[in-house]
Amino acid sequence: MADVAAIEERRIVVAVDESEESIYALQWCLHNLIHSAGEGATARNTLILVYARPPPPVYSPLDGTGYLFSDEVTASIDKYSKDLAVSVMERARNICKDYSNMKVEEKVCVGDARDVICEMAQKLGADLLVMGSHGYGFIKRAFLGSVSDYCARNAKCPVLIVKRPTK
Amino acid sequence: MADVAAIEERRIVVAVDESEESIYALQWCLHNLIHSAGEGATARNTLILVYARPPPPVYSPLDGTGYLFSDEVTASIDKYSKDLAVSVMERARNICKDYSNMKVEEKVCVGDARDVICEMAQKLGADLLVMGSHGYGFIKRAFLGSVSDYCARNAKCPVLIVKRPTK
Repeated sequence: MADVAAIEERRIVVAVDESEESIYALQWCLHNLIHSAGEGATARNTLILVYARPPPPVYSPLDGTGYLFSDEVTASIDKYSKDLAVSVMERARNICKDYSNMKVEEKVCVGDARDVICEMAQKLGADLLVMGSHGYGFIKRAFLGSVSDYCARNAKCPVLIVKRPTK
Repeated sequence: MADVAAIEERRIVVAVDESEESIYALQWCLHNLIHSAGEGATARNTLILVYARPPPPVYSPLDGTGYLFSDEVTASIDKYSKDLAVSVMERARNICKDYSNMKVEEKVCVGDARDVICEMAQKLGADLLVMGSHGYGFIKRAFLGSVSDYCARNAKCPVLIVKRPTK
């Protein structure tokens, strides 16, 4: 069987979004994987925050409601999405800044969260992917399954799914 | 939102079975969560190995093949299952013995792996549940879904799913 070597340079990808679940997952990871290692830790950690920004909506010009989604409206939706990405990253960055014993990187990618997270984990050479247990709204989850289910099944690296305590 | 406190007494439940995936998951956990913490670690770890032993087969006396599953045969299947549990635990224990900076406990429970693992994680107050990405054979997985999918969805604590590298 494949032998497991202790990872000296550990690359931890944390999928962040606007949900409280993902912020909790980030905090759990920092407290329990980074902080608890203490000063004598042998692994150097790089934490990579990944945010998947939904692609801008595309509407057919033949669509009856086309006038509603004028260029201005589309641009405004796109701007909202960009602002949201900036705000999520800022929040995540602030949470990370108390931890000096690691390097932090940030990636914002456009696409479906499920694909973006799995692709980025692989591309960035993640030793571990950390994420909250939700990420889509209830309706979308009912049709597509949760993002975390998908990533747990499809990511090539170990996946840590953190749940917020219900109590 | 719920605040995350650094866990000083960390209880890590590792689901083990006869698969190479589960052994790899145990090794990954030891190397990357226990070993890498080093001497200065602030968390004291208790590792609890959990093995789910399938329940003994129950056959109706009305079943045409009843004679095949005489008490002796049933006892022999049960003995095989018990021996397997002993052998899996022994292998896991041997892997753990190089790590002096943690306490190791063992639990063997009878029942379906999916239920046993989730129940034990909760009962044992797990801060983290670690498991391999497989655990059932291909056919059973196709019908029931994988054990890890189920536990990732249903366990109340964070779940770490470790995959063997395919390379």
